[in-house]
Amino acid sequence: MVNYTTLYQHGTLALLVPGLLDGTITMGDLLKHGDTGIGTGEGLDGELIILDGKPYQVDSTGKVIIVDDDFTLPFANAHFARYSPLAELENVDQDDLNQQMQALSRAENTFFSLKITGTFANVKTRAVAKSKRPYATLAETAKNQSIFTRDQVDGTLLSYYSPQLFNGAAVGGFHHHFLSADHQYGGHVLDFRLVKGEVTYQLFDTLEQHLPVNNEAYMTHDFSKDDIAGSIQKSE
Amino acid sequence: MVNYTTLYQHGTLALLVPGLLDGTITMGDLLKHGDTGIGTGEGLDGELIILDGKPYQVDSTGKVIIVDDDFTLPFANAHFARYSPLAELENVDQDDLNQQMQALSRAENTFFSLKITGTFANVKTRAVAKSKRPYATLAETAKNQSIFTRDQVDGTLLSYYSPQLFNGAAVGGFHHHFLSADHQYGGHVLDFRLVKGEVTYQLFDTLEQHLPVNNEAYMTHDFSKDDIAGSIQKSE
Repeated sequence: MVNYTTLYQHGTLALLVPGLLDGTITMGDLLKHGDTGIGTGEGLDGELIILDGKPYQVDSTGKVIIVDDDFTLPFANAHFARYSPLAELENVDQDDLNQQMQALSRAENTFFSLKITGTFANVKTRAVAKSKRPYATLAETAKNQSIFTRDQVDGTLLSYYSPQLFNGAAVGGFHHHFLSADHQYGGHVLDFRLVKGEVTYQLFDTLEQHLPVNNEAYMTHDFSKDDIAGSIQKSE
Repeated sequence: MVNYTTLYQHGTLALLVPGLLDGTITMGDLLKHGDTGIGTGEGLDGELIILDGKPYQVDSTGKVIIVDDDFTLPFANAHFARYSPLAELENVDQDDLNQQMQALSRAENTFFSLKITGTFANVKTRAVAKSKRPYATLAETAKNQSIFTRDQVDGTLLSYYSPQLFNGAAVGGFHHHFLSADHQYGGHVLDFRLVKGEVTYQLFDTLEQHLPVNNEAYMTHDFSKDDIAGSIQKSE
């Protein structure tokens, strides 16, 4: 029986901060937990977006490919899509949207996802270049990121909202990834302006938080000295 | 198929802080997620401990009863028991045990449970008296708590350990509940000294965090002004 009210998460945002970037789940295994999702590859290898069961990777050159089942990730979210219509929006930017959606959804204290399909006046994204062991911190690795902008583009914005209580485990607030309708452009969203789009949403009552307990680097790391909240704010 | 690597949690520690104390899961439903667990009843109605599928409640008079399936809880943990031997311990108090177990388990970055069966020189517990709507804050309600001490007692200490990252959602560190072998004494553990006991443990790779999304008081509460970490430290 497919579960539509659970958001699956592998790894935590926090483990990226000190650079625990080993791929600890395969895409094949992640897809058992959903047909929709986001993530990053081992060593922060690009930005992933899963739509209709297809896992697209935007790499640091901006190229979009579909990755294999054996592609590995340190951090990812996935769920089985069953979105409901929420609103039709015109001419909103990222801040407007975040605010309006938080109010409209009335779901600030739980996890939910938004899927927005429409025409964008512009979408600014980033994708990080894959780093190799020994991994540097998130802040260091994120310096090797490429920033892209595309004007007048049709596509899908996939967002997850997490309550502030879970900031650190997840990104408190909204976390948006984008894929253009022609599958040629996307990434982790830094900014956008929507010309016109349909907003759908899906509410979760459960976060299934899976941790990489077989990864020694993760299990032996001392997190007490990492500034998790500060690093997330800077990088996201 | 029984899942032995998932810790189920209903509600969050954080929601108790402002007094969101409605019972939002029945014991019957909780027991579908485990035969072992801890929790508190609606309005902070005593301290619950589930062992071998039986849910014991210690109320504020110290009385222990088995609750019905329709008993409701605002916050609880449950899992299906499959413990492995970890250590035999003699003459340790709560601080010693917490320290030794954190080191021995090498699992500081994931969730795990300890079950310690043995003879205790003393066990100090507390149980809160049930409060009614409109609920006061955790700090206010917890003033109506009874503290009990029992010397030379055989019994079971059931503990959950949560990584600090999840402090607020859960209690970061250890959270111990106790039930005596004769089922006449127990509660939320404040302090103890173990004379001799067998420590078993069970590691989880997944936290299944369930939230009370159908409870309006929870969904509309503004958590931004609550001092979650401070209140947990004071009350736990």
